[in-house]
Amino acid sequence: MIAILKHGTTQEQTDHLISWLQRMNLDIHVSEGAHVTILGLIGDTSRVDMELLSSLEIVESVKRVSEPFKQANRKFHPHDSVIQVGDVKIGGGHFAMMAGPCSVESEEQIIEVARAVKASGANILRGGAFKPRTSPYAFQGMKGEGIELLLKAKADTGLPIVTEIMNISTLDLFNDVDIIQVGARNMQNFDLLKELGKTNKPILLKRGLANTLQELLMSAEYIMSEGNENIILCERGIRTFETYTRNTLDLSAVSVLHDLSHLPVIVDPSHATGKAKLVPPMALAAVAAGADGLIIEVHNNPSCALCDGAQSLTPAQFDQLNKQVNRIWEAVQ
Amino acid sequence: MIAILKHGTTQEQTDHLISWLQRMNLDIHVSEGAHVTILGLIGDTSRVDMELLSSLEIVESVKRVSEPFKQANRKFHPHDSVIQVGDVKIGGGHFAMMAGPCSVESEEQIIEVARAVKASGANILRGGAFKPRTSPYAFQGMKGEGIELLLKAKADTGLPIVTEIMNISTLDLFNDVDIIQVGARNMQNFDLLKELGKTNKPILLKRGLANTLQELLMSAEYIMSEGNENIILCERGIRTFETYTRNTLDLSAVSVLHDLSHLPVIVDPSHATGKAKLVPPMALAAVAAGADGLIIEVHNNPSCALCDGAQSLTPAQFDQLNKQVNRIWEAVQ
Amino acid sequence: MIAILKHGTTQEQTDHLISWLQRMNLDIHVSEGAHVTILGLIGDTSRVDMELLSSLEIVESVKRVSEPFKQANRKFHPHDSVIQVGDVKIGGGHFAMMAGPCSVESEEQIIEVARAVKASGANILRGGAFKPRTSPYAFQGMKGEGIELLLKAKADTGLPIVTEIMNISTLDLFNDVDIIQVGARNMQNFDLLKELGKTNKPILLKRGLANTLQELLMSAEYIMSEGNENIILCERGIRTFETYTRNTLDLSAVSVLHDLSHLPVIVDPSHATGKAKLVPPMALAAVAAGADGLIIEVHNNPSCALCDGAQSLTPAQFDQLNKQVNRIWEAVQ
Amino acid sequence: MIAILKHGTTQEQTDHLISWLQRMNLDIHVSEGAHVTILGLIGDTSRVDMELLSSLEIVESVKRVSEPFKQANRKFHPHDSVIQVGDVKIGGGHFAMMAGPCSVESEEQIIEVARAVKASGANILRGGAFKPRTSPYAFQGMKGEGIELLLKAKADTGLPIVTEIMNISTLDLFNDVDIIQVGARNMQNFDLLKELGKTNKPILLKRGLANTLQELLMSAEYIMSEGNENIILCERGIRTFETYTRNTLDLSAVSVLHDLSHLPVIVDPSHATGKAKLVPPMALAAVAAGADGLIIEVHNNPSCALCDGAQSLTPAQFDQLNKQVNRIWEAVQ
Repeated sequence: MIAILKHGTTQEQTDHLISWLQRMNLDIHVSEGAHVTILGLIGDTSRVDMELLSSLEIVESVKRVSEPFKQANRKFHPHDSVIQVGDVKIGGGHFAMMAGPCSVESEEQIIEVARAVKASGANILRGGAFKPRTSPYAFQGMKGEGIELLLKAKADTGLPIVTEIMNISTLDLFNDVDIIQVGARNMQNFDLLKELGKTNKPILLKRGLANTLQELLMSAEYIMSEGNENIILCERGIRTFETYTRNTLDLSAVSVLHDLSHLPVIVDPSHATGKAKLVPPMALAAVAAGADGLIIEVHNNPSCALCDGAQSLTPAQFDQLNKQVNRIWEAVQ
Repeated sequence: MIAILKHGTTQEQTDHLISWLQRMNLDIHVSEGAHVTILGLIGDTSRVDMELLSSLEIVESVKRVSEPFKQANRKFHPHDSVIQVGDVKIGGGHFAMMAGPCSVESEEQIIEVARAVKASGANILRGGAFKPRTSPYAFQGMKGEGIELLLKAKADTGLPIVTEIMNISTLDLFNDVDIIQVGARNMQNFDLLKELGKTNKPILLKRGLANTLQELLMSAEYIMSEGNENIILCERGIRTFETYTRNTLDLSAVSVLHDLSHLPVIVDPSHATGKAKLVPPMALAAVAAGADGLIIEVHNNPSCALCDGAQSLTPAQFDQLNKQVNRIWEAVQ
Repeated sequence: MIAILKHGTTQEQTDHLISWLQRMNLDIHVSEGAHVTILGLIGDTSRVDMELLSSLEIVESVKRVSEPFKQANRKFHPHDSVIQVGDVKIGGGHFAMMAGPCSVESEEQIIEVARAVKASGANILRGGAFKPRTSPYAFQGMKGEGIELLLKAKADTGLPIVTEIMNISTLDLFNDVDIIQVGARNMQNFDLLKELGKTNKPILLKRGLANTLQELLMSAEYIMSEGNENIILCERGIRTFETYTRNTLDLSAVSVLHDLSHLPVIVDPSHATGKAKLVPPMALAAVAAGADGLIIEVHNNPSCALCDGAQSLTPAQFDQLNKQVNRIWEAVQ
Repeated sequence: MIAILKHGTTQEQTDHLISWLQRMNLDIHVSEGAHVTILGLIGDTSRVDMELLSSLEIVESVKRVSEPFKQANRKFHPHDSVIQVGDVKIGGGHFAMMAGPCSVESEEQIIEVARAVKASGANILRGGAFKPRTSPYAFQGMKGEGIELLLKAKADTGLPIVTEIMNISTLDLFNDVDIIQVGARNMQNFDLLKELGKTNKPILLKRGLANTLQELLMSAEYIMSEGNENIILCERGIRTFETYTRNTLDLSAVSVLHDLSHLPVIVDPSHATGKAKLVPPMALAAVAAGADGLIIEVHNNPSCALCDGAQSLTPAQFDQLNKQVNRIWEAVQ
């Protein structure tokens, strides 16, 4: 970490700051120029409060040289992490195709969709039981009952399941869930992250709508620092001024995260775009960009022919997409 | 709510959609033009899933005419809400000056700051006990012990206290806290909001870094829908591309929120700007913009002369600011 | 266009507004509900000032049903436009690979790069002669001399050339340029767009850093409304809070623009990401997303071995990328 | 400027980089740590291409210690600049109240508004003659004729006038204009800036919708580097995800710009918010934040009673606002 001191800082102030930093077990390397003094902080700077340091009166600015995340950092773990979920592997050349309905609605629905997506090539079943909704008046999901229905679909098809947790008090309900999803709005619910770090369940950690990639990795670090290293990162769109799509899918995140971290990275084009029509091109683009997997909304609702245009694909559309995904996957290997 | 159907929608599809909407107890008003059919949805549309509706194949777009929030809505509650906190009133012409340190660090510190800010005119004491931090390696606050120290400062000075909750499992520790703060990162932690709605504590609800004002009001609605109407809204900066300030303080939020809602609105210039130098001008601007209060970081750390430039003001700077705030407050009455 | 009137609007005010709208040659369709009156505006609403209308005291909100762009609109021109540049076609199944250095620096440099990218499969040569720079003290390009060197490279290799115009007063220098580029910062330099609309040169129109896709199409409409229909749209990244990449490449723009317009859409991954390492994955993702072409920075600077990490690829890296692009292109046909 | 080299950089690479930097007349100060080598670049670094340097393979990151703008920099010009416009002074304790219609529409209109705003206390008249519009089909202003009408209003009232230029080819029409405005969309139209730098007219330079404060100062530097130091900076809202207001007014810009530069800073609440109701609170907030002036839209259109809710104030509303502005101005002196 580098701290640049302001022009006019006295020797006494500089000494005062250095002794404060040395008390954090850091070695301080001083480099004095005509107009500026630079301090190099050597040691474990992950515990230095960069905001506090940079707000000091005598400090012009502070710059990290090493990333503040350690266990998620590729520098200390050069090989790709491979997350094992039942018989399925994710990362390091293994592709995860997660598919299923936005919400679990009935046993018939979830089993029918599970069979369909399995037949098309999905290897993990997704489905929402606890639903974070902007409005308290909107449907909040089937909750525990939804998880039970997902487990029936798992028993029927053999597909591992992924579903979202919103509150650590419901953790017991997730005993037989294969991957626990942390949604975008909970990416910085640090107490939830810490508790999940004490389990050994694979965690699907979604990027928050206004969070930087470094913040996403710091949230992964929260989980890892408690002992759970089974983390799958997920890019699902960030909030920008563009209103035509629900969010802006940031596909460069895939390469950047692979560069900074050893954890697998998947992409959710359904929530990012909010429009079924945009899901296939963004899914293919994600694979071309190097994603380790996709999570796609697929519904099967013969009683509601109206719903065909939602952000969910029909089983037939998903089947076609899966074939194209395979072609792109092969082209980039 | 208005739904505009796509050109080419068949009569059968239109009828199908109308009967689906009617099953939600809505009256549907059809208006057919040459190129477009418009459906007016009359009734309680707060339960209509606007995203689902707008994603239907035959729907061009959907527009709310009435806001999706009800209890927070000024239309149904024209007079300003006044929140009572001990002897202090907030809103409706009553100004709240909340001040105190970022983190509670020791009994000596919190009592000294409490006395100082009270002497300068603050009427509520702030102080962090549970600290949401981006890094798991950063100081996470004194937690329960911090709340105990705040209560000592309250006993000493008579100032009501406000401090942040991060996890509903710690609610018991907040029994004697006067105002419970929900931080920006938890603005859409819906389970936390619902539990706080079951208490009758005043809640200080901070806007999320990437949340719209409507989403902020929907989060207030979550609390109110469970029975707790004692909510103070807080603008604390949003995330933009500008990097000179930590966040961009959106002061137009004050007027917009007053226009849409009867709830009081306060402003946090310390977290928004991240720089002590910018706190006074933004505090004065907030008062001129019509804010019902301020929440300001003040520290008193004689052992760390280095810390003078942080986002916290010294007691002397706070004293001066308070005098200016009073002048502006009088000028806008 | 739909205008929703506020509750409480008098009949006289409504009549006043209707007669004002009728004077713009619009038919007005009135639909009165219990709480709201909706006006449907039928006719050529592209000339209606939507901002003015929505700001009227009695108007709750205004919504366009039809897009404000006409000549760029796919609804009135269902087939893909194909832009002819010398022997090269762009759009409608024809892929453009534009490559070359950021700035033209010397005859030797530009000819060497031109030969190299042609050998790898590029079909158009790019190179900057007029360089928009944030700082007045930075190198501003070789200007007219740079265009002359590009023309020598064109003569040598037969590749058509694309280069940026910053000021309409230099238009004469572009007589033999094949495609005139309008940079992101000039996307809403409306006087420049109008003048380019009076030429019949193909125009490469880059999206501004904070412009919506509709605004990009309105800028294309500026050019087309003056008679020039040879426009190639270019996504090159938008400005967000993420700082790891220079900009955030919005690849969903490719599908959205293809959906709204018949004009070809290319992608510039070099400027979007600012890092050579990210160019290949984003280039492949763009092709998978359906882009009609790419514009890639390639340099050849044996005297500056230091420069290898810039946002420019080396000829060898470009050669490899081109092979991968071809594989992805075939996989998505 | 500080350049941090990557771990693993060879001595030969380091030497190569140092000699390249020395050829730019910089002194290089090397500081080697265990894991990192830091180069301090001493001298005139305003000409160093920071993007190029930071993109080099061996460079981890680059950080400016001194700002890249010089003539606009307060460090080299500690006293506030005061811009003289006729008898009116702007900056350094002198407040500018610019007011007038969005567009000049007729002689009667502009003279009536000019008289009204003068009577209320405005000291400069604004009015649009050349109007940048998103759509080519929207009214583009009265152009040269509009400027003539502004000059008649100036003759009638004695108020200096400010109006926008869009194209340097129209400069002759601005001979008798007192302040030339550069709009947000042209903030980085560098050729326009350079030409205006060759005049000695006061320039009102508006911040672009997605431009940082440093970029705004670099655009001021473009004008100043050609010899014209009469620049008034203007904050007018930036583009964010919030849709309730047209843009997000960034009032912290006032303090930041005053901190970084000696140039006066005014605020445009009319364009920032897009709603008349929000103009007074944001105008007062701007004054409390330390702005050196305001630019406010005022219209007087008795034939169009409908227009009362636009972003423009009526003369009566402006009169009231001006009284409040005076009270706030006095309170912050």
